Order: sequence, then C-alpha cells, then structure tokens
Amino acid sequence: MRFSTAILTLLSTTSLITATGPTKTQLSNRSKKFSLGIVLFPGFEPLDVIGPFEILQSVSAYYPLSISFIASQTGPITSRAPPHVMVPGQPPVDLSHLIAMDLYATHTFTTAPPLDILLIPGGMGNMVLVENNDTSIETFINSRYSELEYLLSVCTGSVPLARSGVLKRRRATTNKSFWGWVTQFGEKVKWVPSARWTQDGKIWTSSGVAAGMDMTYAFLSKVYGRQGVLDNVMNAIEYAPHTDPHWDPFSVVWEVPGADQQGSLESCVKPVGW
Amino acid sequence: MRFSTAILTLLSTTSLITATGPTKTQLSNRSKKFSLGIVLFPGFEPLDVIGPFEILQSVSAYYPLSISFIASQTGPITSRAPPHVMVPGQPPVDLSHLIAMDLYATHTFTTAPPLDILLIPGGMGNMVLVENNDTSIETFINSRYSELEYLLSVCTGSVPLARSGVLKRRRATTNKSFWGWVTQFGEKVKWVPSARWTQDGKIWTSSGVAAGMDMTYAFLSKVYGRQGVLDNVMNAIEYAPHTDPHWDPFSVVWEVPGADQQGSLESCVKPVGW
Repeated sequence: MRFSTAILTLLSTTSLITATGPTKTQLSNRSKKFSLGIVLFPGFEPLDVIGPFEILQSVSAYYPLSISFIASQTGPITSRAPPHVMVPGQPPVDLSHLIAMDLYATHTFTTAPPLDILLIPGGMGNMVLVENNDTSIETFINSRYSELEYLLSVCTGSVPLARSGVLKRRRATTNKSFWGWVTQFGEKVKWVPSARWTQDGKIWTSSGVAAGMDMTYAFLSKVYGRQGVLDNVMNAIEYAPHTDPHWDPFSVVWEVPGADQQGSLESCVKPVGW
Repeated sequence: MRFSTAILTLLSTTSLITATGPTKTQLSNRSKKFSLGIVLFPGFEPLDVIGPFEILQSVSAYYPLSISFIASQTGPITSRAPPHVMVPGQPPVDLSHLIAMDLYATHTFTTAPPLDILLIPGGMGNMVLVENNDTSIETFINSRYSELEYLLSVCTGSVPLARSGVLKRRRATTNKSFWGWVTQFGEKVKWVPSARWTQDGKIWTSSGVAAGMDMTYAFLSKVYGRQGVLDNVMNAIEYAPHTDPHWDPFSVVWEVPGADQQGSLESCVKPVGW
C-alpha cells in the first residue's frame, strides 16, 4: 500500500474510532509554529537528542516546527566528553577510546532565536560542565525560562535544570545509574526516584536516554493530541512507546534509594492506537 | 550508588547467575577492534543511525571499536531529503518544511578505511538516490562485501543492499510502511513480511527505524555475548529491547501482504538480564 494512501486510511480510521478528539488548544497547537531548541555540549548523549528529535522531525512533516541546535559555539559538537574527573580523588577519566559522532550546532546561546520549547539532553558532558564550573546552560535556561512554553530534559540533562534554580519545589527525575551524582544538585528539588518521566507545570524531565522517547510521546500527546498524526508517526517509525510514567524498572536495577520495589519490572507495549 | 561500583556489582552478579557464558569466539571478539562504518546520505533517518550508534558507543567504552561515518563527501550531511518524486506522476515532494539535523561524515566512499562491520540506514533519502540513479552505496557495498564480517541495514537501508545484489537468495526485511516500494528492488530477494529483523549469514536487516535498536542488541549479543557489558549497557541507557525477531505488529498495522496476522501485536519487555 502506498505510504500516502496508508496515512490517509489510518487518519480517517483513527478519528472515527476515537471517543475523545483533540481539544481546542490541541487543534490550535497543530497550526502554531513552535520554535524548538535543543542544547548541545561536548559529551552529549546521542540518543537523548535523537530519540526525541526523530519523533519531532516526523511530526514536523504535518505540524509546523522550527529547530535550533544551540551550543557555546556553532559547528560540529562531539558526543565524546573531554577528560574529566568521574570519581573524586581519582585521576581524570579519558574517554578518547570511545567512538563518537559530531552533531552540527546551528546557533550559540547568544544567537538562538526566541524559543517556545527547549530540550536539554544528558550525557557524560554534564559532569565535565559541572567540573569546569561552566554554567552557560544554566544561564541560558534562566534567560529564556519565562518566555518558554515548555522546558524538557532527558537523562542527566536535569542537572543544569536543577542548578539553574527552575526546579525549586518542582518534581523531576533523571537517569537512574547516575542518581546519586545528579540528585546532589539544586535546591528544594522534589527528585522522584521511580519515574520514566515527570511533569510539573511546564517542566518535563525524563529518566535515562531511551526514556526520552517515551516522554516525548506523552509530551506531544498533550500538546497536539494523539489522534491522527502523532500516533501514525509512532507507527511509521515503528516505536511502541511505554505510556505509563510510573514504569521505572531501572530505578530498581540501579538501586535508587526510595525506588518503587512493588512495581512490575515488565511493560507490555503495542502500536499506539491498536 | 556510584556508577563504577554499580557496574562492577552487576558485572559480577551477572556472571554468577548466567548459566551459559560467552563462547570462545565471543570472548575473542571482545578484544578484537572491529572497524565499524555507517553510511550517510541526504535524507537519512536520524534514529536509524543513532539508535544503533548509541548502543555501539556505549559498548565501545569497554570493547574496542573504531567508527567511520561514510558519505559521498565529508562534512555535514543533512537528514532532510532533497525534493523528490514520491508518487509517480505526481509533482516532486518538497520536504523543506521539515526540521532537520546535520551529522558529520568523516570519510568518503573512497577514503573509508578497511571495515569489518558496515551499517546502511534508511530514510526518505533512499528514494532520492534511486530516483537520481545514484548507485554509489551499492558500488561501495559490492567493493567491501567480501572483506566485511557483517553487513547491517535498518529500515529502507535494505534497498541499496537489494540493488547491490548481495541479497540474492537471502532473507531480508525493511520498514513496513514502505513495504511496497522497497520490495520491488533486488533480484531473488527472500523478503520477509513479518520480522522485526532478519539474519542470513553475515547480513542483518531490520524493520523500520526503532527496530534498528532491537536488531543491534541481538547482533551484539551474537558477536560479544550478552553477559557483562552488553546487558549492563542496555540497562544504563534504559532501553528494554524487543528480543523476538518474529514480533512485528507493524507489518499488520501497515497491511503488508503476507503479514503474520496470528502473532500478538503486544510485546512485553523488561530490563535485560532481569
């Protein structure tokens, strides 16, 4: 079946069987051109960025979006973190033997356009920024926070959010293998030990790496409504998302203090809308 | 718990409880420095590349790997496909409104080093290459095929594999929303309508986009063995892979002729090794 025909068939079928359609706001959002920014830094985690980006890019074929990849400088930004002290008192960890990729930053913190949605990924690079006392991301978050409609983080990307102060008295999570390191940051942050993602007001934070995709699906379901484009896109990229934010077996795997030991380690998924 | 301590704990625990350890070949592979190549072209699908790359990058902290991003030219390669005819007889489709990213190619088809593993991603760009009669990827595959230990494709990346001739009398699959278009290519290809991924000899092909990660986990389980590093890495990136290659609900969703209608649309996953 031709791709275009398949899309139209599913679009019409889905709207017929859905009991609740998109809200007025969601319909309005579908023609609003959200300005999306994704921050990059040396040692960003590739899938933290590209998991969400894949879904957003696919959606942008139907709903207007614009993108800025924002870093301290434009041009190629490497996914390899520079040498840094990972364990206090130990010599710096050299990750030069890791394979790495370069993603192109299109804007700097200074030249980035007005933004509606800002996403901060995680990665080993977060440790380096902290170690170097580099607060450029925190400063950028604070300068843009009031204008943002949404602020998202994936994995240890919640660290700059915490250090910026925007997480004060707000719920947030992070990847679970680095829980101890991450949760030392920020004042009065309500760190949630078991959560695939959290939402508190306009701030969404996800657990580690792959969880960014599940958070993105939940986020876009809220912004646009699932019916029609979003669910079709998830099925076109053949990703069956985890839709329960409480499913967080990795908080158990990585022995996070206060993790929900009663929850099931298992999650059953299928194509959305089916 | 500190990351390093957590890794050591899980490494020792896992080797204690695993009934079957790594084979001699797998142990040998763990210190063999595989030379990995990933082809890029304008309009590559980001997650086709970065899903597998995230896992490979994480593994490369422990097992030596080298990477080349290979394209017709070095420098930034865009994920946005140039205008192309998507439906014969229709005007060219202009995808300039899609958001896009640039990934850096490090080598050309000419300068790429000797390779052990080659991965071809999919994306709308495959259609453009076919339309432009661009067979550079097919030529590259044929020039390297005999030296390769493994050849992998994700999504419509199986199209250049088919067109190169290496899929002759071999099983292969592709993403399911483009099934009709893809399966016209290649001679005597045993296209498998319902498969999350296939393996035939040294050739591995996966279904669409996100399926690349499931294939990569299965592939690396074969190459290295799951125990120790690989399973830990999957849990560090918090991805619970689908481990059954026969689970392919998207072949049903996208109405692929011959799709397995009896199989469950649902897949239950949990952290590997748990």
